[in-house]
Amino acid sequence: MTQEQSCPPALLALAHAMADAAADLIRPHFRKRLEIDTKADASPVTIADRDAEARMRQMIEAHFPDHGIRGEEFGSCRTDAEWVWVLDPIDGTKSFVSGSLAFGTQIALLHRGVPVLGMINQPITGERWLGVSGVQATLNGEPIRTSGRTALNQAIVYTSALEQFDRKRHDRFTALAARRYDRGLSGGPP
Amino acid sequence: MTQEQSCPPALLALAHAMADAAADLIRPHFRKRLEIDTKADASPVTIADRDAEARMRQMIEAHFPDHGIRGEEFGSCRTDAEWVWVLDPIDGTKSFVSGSLAFGTQIALLHRGVPVLGMINQPITGERWLGVSGVQATLNGEPIRTSGRTALNQAIVYTSALEQFDRKRHDRFTALAARRYDRGLSGGPP
Repeated sequence: MTQEQSCPPALLALAHAMADAAADLIRPHFRKRLEIDTKADASPVTIADRDAEARMRQMIEAHFPDHGIRGEEFGSCRTDAEWVWVLDPIDGTKSFVSGSLAFGTQIALLHRGVPVLGMINQPITGERWLGVSGVQATLNGEPIRTSGRTALNQAIVYTSALEQFDRKRHDRFTALAARRYDRGLSGGPP
Repeated sequence: MTQEQSCPPALLALAHAMADAAADLIRPHFRKRLEIDTKADASPVTIADRDAEARMRQMIEAHFPDHGIRGEEFGSCRTDAEWVWVLDPIDGTKSFVSGSLAFGTQIALLHRGVPVLGMINQPITGERWLGVSGVQATLNGEPIRTSGRTALNQAIVYTSALEQFDRKRHDRFTALAARRYDRGLSGGPP
């Protein structure tokens, strides 16, 4: 029987430090005029995305130069390493550049391909969700849990952008949403 | 030439006090288990919506019993009054019950049918947007302004729920969004 690898304290500490550092670089750009570049996949990117990821990569290289990295903006290195970090400095860049709070810094850590840590940090509100394998998930240190609902018609269904789906997936999502008690809930606010 | 009615200081003060009072009643329910009722139009409502609007109505009645009120949850009274308040205690109840921050308390004041004040308050983040006729709009007291962009292809287009549109409006929105530089931006975060 194999023992599940937990997340070593030093790596958890690094994740927290990276989220803090990214937030410090992102915060000054929120609701300011920003140059918005368009990536190959037509999604936007800003200096805040790039600076935050560059800083997180520096921190990994400084402390654990043998760790691998997969980053949203600057690609991959050493992905066959025992430990691999997955970084998205601003998930929700469109929200970020619109002045909406629906974005966050995402940090994950894989051990031999298996996730052992996942963190979402909202740089403006200071909300930090943390999942570590074998430990109850938290929001700013307080335990959190899923709703416990198992009936589909009581679920809340979200998607960020229906039009990013092809027709088949669009229809599938709409059908799923329609099975819920209030189909209006399938989108954002009323 | 008629002088535009500005917003009397006592009424601006009442708007702030109502936003504060509503926030105090809404905050304790955020990210807690809440009974969700479904209104006649299939939109959800909670005790937080109802308590917040009831409190705001009491405050208006206590200070300005001759003012009219139009409320999202408890209907209208004295709508032919010189001054009429328009209240939505939680605009975005679906977001609210989902634990998302994309909701707010909306307060408006009409003088003989003409808006002289509009306020949006986010009870959790403490963001308060204020527009008063003849005065620059503010966010938490700091002046704000629109982007100044006039070209449609540089606009950011948002809607809360495409599926709330009928087919014709759905297609019209999609066509509008497609005229922008990055059609992906028409929805929420990437």
